[in-house]
Amino acid sequence: MTGDERTSEKLVELAKRRGYFFQSSSAYGGVGGFYTFGPQGAALKRNVEDAWRERFTVGEGNVEIDAPTIMPEAVFEASGHLETFDDMLVECPDCGESHRADHVVEDNTDYEDAESLPIPEVEEVIAEYELVCPSCGAGLAGQAVEDFNLMFATNIGPGDAQPGYLRPETAQGIFVEFPRLKEYARNTLPFGVTQIGRAYRNEISPRRSIIRVRELTQAELEQFVDPAGDGPDLSDVEDVTVTLYPASEQQAEDGEPYETTIGDAVAEGTIADEWIAYYLGVAKPWYESLGVDMDRFRFRQHLAGERSHYASDCWDAEAEIDGGGESSDSGYWIELAGFAHRGDYDLSKHDAHSEDRYTVFRQYDEPKTVERAVVDPDMSYLGPEFGADAQRVVEELETLAGRDRSAFSAAATAAEDSSGDESEPRDGAAVEIDLDGETHEIPVEKTGFSVDEQTEAGEHVIPHVIEPSFGVDRLVYTVLHHAYREDEVDGEARTYLELDPEIAPTFVGVFPLQSDEALEAEATAIARALRAAGLSVAYDDSGNIGRRYRRQDEVGTPFCVTVDYETVEGQEKTVTVRERDSTAQKRLPVSDLAETLSALRAGELAFEDLEG
Amino acid sequence: MTGDERTSEKLVELAKRRGYFFQSSSAYGGVGGFYTFGPQGAALKRNVEDAWRERFTVGEGNVEIDAPTIMPEAVFEASGHLETFDDMLVECPDCGESHRADHVVEDNTDYEDAESLPIPEVEEVIAEYELVCPSCGAGLAGQAVEDFNLMFATNIGPGDAQPGYLRPETAQGIFVEFPRLKEYARNTLPFGVTQIGRAYRNEISPRRSIIRVRELTQAELEQFVDPAGDGPDLSDVEDVTVTLYPASEQQAEDGEPYETTIGDAVAEGTIADEWIAYYLGVAKPWYESLGVDMDRFRFRQHLAGERSHYASDCWDAEAEIDGGGESSDSGYWIELAGFAHRGDYDLSKHDAHSEDRYTVFRQYDEPKTVERAVVDPDMSYLGPEFGADAQRVVEELETLAGRDRSAFSAAATAAEDSSGDESEPRDGAAVEIDLDGETHEIPVEKTGFSVDEQTEAGEHVIPHVIEPSFGVDRLVYTVLHHAYREDEVDGEARTYLELDPEIAPTFVGVFPLQSDEALEAEATAIARALRAAGLSVAYDDSGNIGRRYRRQDEVGTPFCVTVDYETVEGQEKTVTVRERDSTAQKRLPVSDLAETLSALRAGELAFEDLEG
Repeated sequence: MTGDERTSEKLVELAKRRGYFFQSSSAYGGVGGFYTFGPQGAALKRNVEDAWRERFTVGEGNVEIDAPTIMPEAVFEASGHLETFDDMLVECPDCGESHRADHVVEDNTDYEDAESLPIPEVEEVIAEYELVCPSCGAGLAGQAVEDFNLMFATNIGPGDAQPGYLRPETAQGIFVEFPRLKEYARNTLPFGVTQIGRAYRNEISPRRSIIRVRELTQAELEQFVDPAGDGPDLSDVEDVTVTLYPASEQQAEDGEPYETTIGDAVAEGTIADEWIAYYLGVAKPWYESLGVDMDRFRFRQHLAGERSHYASDCWDAEAEIDGGGESSDSGYWIELAGFAHRGDYDLSKHDAHSEDRYTVFRQYDEPKTVERAVVDPDMSYLGPEFGADAQRVVEELETLAGRDRSAFSAAATAAEDSSGDESEPRDGAAVEIDLDGETHEIPVEKTGFSVDEQTEAGEHVIPHVIEPSFGVDRLVYTVLHHAYREDEVDGEARTYLELDPEIAPTFVGVFPLQSDEALEAEATAIARALRAAGLSVAYDDSGNIGRRYRRQDEVGTPFCVTVDYETVEGQEKTVTVRERDSTAQKRLPVSDLAETLSALRAGELAFEDLEG
Repeated sequence: MTGDERTSEKLVELAKRRGYFFQSSSAYGGVGGFYTFGPQGAALKRNVEDAWRERFTVGEGNVEIDAPTIMPEAVFEASGHLETFDDMLVECPDCGESHRADHVVEDNTDYEDAESLPIPEVEEVIAEYELVCPSCGAGLAGQAVEDFNLMFATNIGPGDAQPGYLRPETAQGIFVEFPRLKEYARNTLPFGVTQIGRAYRNEISPRRSIIRVRELTQAELEQFVDPAGDGPDLSDVEDVTVTLYPASEQQAEDGEPYETTIGDAVAEGTIADEWIAYYLGVAKPWYESLGVDMDRFRFRQHLAGERSHYASDCWDAEAEIDGGGESSDSGYWIELAGFAHRGDYDLSKHDAHSEDRYTVFRQYDEPKTVERAVVDPDMSYLGPEFGADAQRVVEELETLAGRDRSAFSAAATAAEDSSGDESEPRDGAAVEIDLDGETHEIPVEKTGFSVDEQTEAGEHVIPHVIEPSFGVDRLVYTVLHHAYREDEVDGEARTYLELDPEIAPTFVGVFPLQSDEALEAEATAIARALRAAGLSVAYDDSGNIGRRYRRQDEVGTPFCVTVDYETVEGQEKTVTVRERDSTAQKRLPVSDLAETLSALRAGELAFEDLEG
């Protein structure tokens, strides 16, 4: 076991003890993959969400919506989730437990991306390597590997006439409402729509605390852009340094992640899409501001096989959190966010499947004159000739005119050539169409074919989508993991969370030194004043002062204020302010305490520079 | 149709057009009871949630948690939802549509509370009144009325071995975690835990836009109190005036809601529980601050038949929104929140059903010496006498000792009386127990009965729960409905939302007067500065200025700032600021615009008092 693995275990224990997070419904034995954020965790998660909103919604001039988590089946038929949002499942013949077949293969063979293998091959690998059930050790050879859809299914209303699913991502709630959202954006590209909310994945084997859960929180941004439009203004991000791990480096023998700038990565073509480059450049300093350790952070490009078939490029933000698997000493990288270029996949799917149009009208700089090939068939000829099939013939002719007008013009030319002798039509004087596998010839003059000129002001285009998609639970986990510290104070071991003051769920602890009415009254008044200044305060009067400090250290509270007899008896009221990381203490006046602490929180002041 | 009904319809239309809310997935025909909050609605909803958190969590020193929406079946077995969270359903034999049987009865007969009738009686009423399907008119007589459970069901993991349900209220996520939450509160009552999140009710007939939906947002507070503890300090709320509609007034012939104060209502016993009184007193000014019209707001007490069987008292906050039903001219009152005294119902259920203990240890002021009746039966007597049943006899004796120690002492007294003649035990010298319906006599000296003295430091008590439970969607609807206004400006009809500046999703519109690079640059700079000051800004440069004002009026934006040539050419930069409600305009300097607008937002300044 590595030191980092122990960090992970100790963090989970601390998280439960101090109200960050814990497995839900443990009174009833718990259910894998469901966690409850306690008072500290819920506040930290909210701070992370607010910071995301501030940066990716407000800061980018985007808008946020709030859609239901249950959506009807038709949405997921269109999106493809009903058919393809699967994991491979193998059930143990002995103990009956279900496992992810690809994980069983990856954990026990040299296969690295078993998910991309076809099912029969996975079954063969299981048989060939004589793989066994991870729970009971029974052999899995010969067991069927099956696709298991990861969406939670339910029924809307009585009976089963209206199947519904819990959304597997917040994105569909944005895509499906695009026809209304584009109106709010006054039909002008580019525009971005965000959503922060729950998503659900019925994982076969939930793992690693809040990292792979069945109910999660996502913060997603759908950036709708004109496929022929300009990219974003990169000037704000081009100097941002990032650690990139492109596909080429992952595939090279001695490939490594390396540091560069967004501007250089675009110039060199490493990051092909400028919108993706832009959001990587926005995301990196944002993660840093939350306290994610930049030495354990990188952007990794998806390999071609890893990408969804419709995505032209995708980069993940990844963080290293601890030992990978049971047998490995190396760091374990988890995905914090994905930045995918999804092309027109999502909107064109809904455009094709639904009653609404998922396009934006793009006005030409000046109106264009275009030629349109049209037909106006002679029904007095087609009717007797084709009977009930006449209308289908018309449709075939219309299709043919749109697709290949040369079929008509060639026939027309041929017909003209032979115009002198109408009784003897030559080859080519007729248009050929196909009906139920049979070829029919229609004399070109009966088709009413012509080419018209039309003036068009613009065209309807299906926007492309660039999607930065953030996992909130994993980010909360990473922020805590990267903040976990152990040291020794006055000869005693101490655990503390070095959380950034702007993100810490509790910013300041306020303590009366001991049980005394005057001290408690003063401490209560100070706590109230700090709360009124918008600071998150924990008032604590139980146990000795050392124990109270340690409690706040474990919560990650950046500062503690202690009220003692000097406070209530002195001429100018002063209190002891203790800093979490250094445990240094200073004597500061109460009169501008709220102001001082607010400045420390905003990073406008440093504790070591204070006089006191 | 009444004027108010038209307001309701017009509001729903405006809500869709301006991005407040609209039915979800309408591209696929929509599904009843699911709504999406657009950019304005999501921001308004968030403002409402933040205001609730500020008042009921932070302001009350409570803590907030964030639990999953999917919970395992065992939780709802314990809570009673699996058995009793039902509505009565009747299916039309012709069109197959399902309806709430109690609504069909109430809408077409004089029955007012059909929900409380037993199912056979509802079937009889349907037959007797020859009630018909509201959709197709087919007769419903003879159709079975059935209980339909309103929880959305799903399966956790592969197969159906682990049923799960979408929580019907956020509360269970708090109750089930009480054993951990009490630790964070250091085992001290009272303490309060809140949660804001989704809840789900698979309504048979969703109705009235976002008022009765299948997926909703709740803000709930569970106040855990010592059943023998002191009530809250009422001094902050006793002077709050409230409109009460107690059960007694609802039942009296000429009963009416009336105005009183919280203090008087408690003194007169109208509100029996002080915790409920306290939270009514907190809630009323809070609703008022959000813009709920206090002339259309009241607290209505539940009638005895309306209350859950375990709730000792319950008051609803109600708002009048518009015409009630199709045939009525009177106002329609909807429930905005419920304030219920739930006793120990929830925690004792989980205490009984789960592995955890849902109690708090209440320390006595000083240790108490208590007598405990114990038995120590003589097994050498019971064994031969009762064989395999001997252990059950011991348990019966233990139960009897705990319940009725006089059974032993009477027998003992009788035995002592006859002590002189052991060969002839008199009546009463034996203790009677019951085993499978048969009575057995056990000689009292074989029971080892004694009364011991024990010293106890305290006792384990199951806390009582007072639950203020708020519906967020309905509140958003009410705030919009009560803010809806129509007037005439310069001879033209105008619609606007008179939203409170602190709650309005967009606070200020910023417009360049016309298409001009200098004006646009200045307007963009002003928008950026106002955003940096924390104001919610809409920048709009499309259409004539009058149309832009009207657009923001419909959104409910309190102020608009217009940049014109005077702005960019004048010595001291000034802009036109227009107030929404009065449409009055003033010329204000740009230099302190952010400050002025912030003060207007906080209510520290009034627009009519400004010079300009």
